[in-house]
Amino acid sequence: MSKILEEVIVSNKAYASSFGKKKDLNAAPSRKFAILTCMDARLDPAKFAGLSEGDAHVIRNAGGRVSEDAIRSLLISYKLLGTNEWFIVHHTDCGLEKFSNEDIDKKFNIQSKDKIDWLTFKDNKKSLVEDVLKLRNHSLVPSSISIYGYIYDCQSGNLIEVKEATDIGA
Amino acid sequence: MSKILEEVIVSNKAYASSFGKKKDLNAAPSRKFAILTCMDARLDPAKFAGLSEGDAHVIRNAGGRVSEDAIRSLLISYKLLGTNEWFIVHHTDCGLEKFSNEDIDKKFNIQSKDKIDWLTFKDNKKSLVEDVLKLRNHSLVPSSISIYGYIYDCQSGNLIEVKEATDIGA
Repeated sequence: MSKILEEVIVSNKAYASSFGKKKDLNAAPSRKFAILTCMDARLDPAKFAGLSEGDAHVIRNAGGRVSEDAIRSLLISYKLLGTNEWFIVHHTDCGLEKFSNEDIDKKFNIQSKDKIDWLTFKDNKKSLVEDVLKLRNHSLVPSSISIYGYIYDCQSGNLIEVKEATDIGA
Repeated sequence: MSKILEEVIVSNKAYASSFGKKKDLNAAPSRKFAILTCMDARLDPAKFAGLSEGDAHVIRNAGGRVSEDAIRSLLISYKLLGTNEWFIVHHTDCGLEKFSNEDIDKKFNIQSKDKIDWLTFKDNKKSLVEDVLKLRNHSLVPSSISIYGYIYDCQSGNLIEVKEATDIGA
């Protein structure tokens, strides 16, 4: 057993040993919202947004991008489990801002026919606005859902509103 | 401003006010691992697996499924940011186990030509094994990466190993 695996199991046993009333939580988020953000190790959405278990859906991928899979998850979040406010949270110092799709293809020696869209971006605010717009214009996303656009600052822990994105999401 | 938005901002301000040394964290996860799990509101991977900010990548979608987007994220996690152990964690009482793709299409009144693969499943263990196998067989995932398959028990907080999946991922 690897050191990491052992540590995770030990931590998990400690967590489960004081699980208490969390066993009675419902699948539907009690605070009816969802956060889509980056997988970045520095981000802990439960901590930076004040979530307890049972409160909200958390969707994470490289960049916090509105990929097809993020859309699938958000649609399920809304239609099956009742969320009606969505936070899209990118962050400063994101890996996807530092590399181009071509850079990453090269690292993997990917030939042109097998190219992957790594969803890199050059301008954080612009990518956030594009992402919110993609959701707002999606045929299965009703106008009743509020979408907020924020950038998390890895230097301070602050969520900084990107008003242009939030205005689109209103 | 909605009540939820206000609460999130208040929680965030409290978090940022005692941010301290977290400003010095690196983008690369210090414990060199990643967790892919479900967006379910009851799951807090940082808590159930003992993560501090900076430790590990966390990728989440509906079901914790190995979608193309999850693969994109895991590949970036490994190649750009150095992770070499991946936990794939499904959970008990998952929404994707209770509905079929057709059920969800119907809820959205989706016509056959616009069908979405919602990545529903009927057997949790089997879906986990399939997901680990998909990663293990992926041409860009090297054999040096260890992949572990677990099911999180929403009734107890325990991570339960699915040996068949972990054996495939070894």
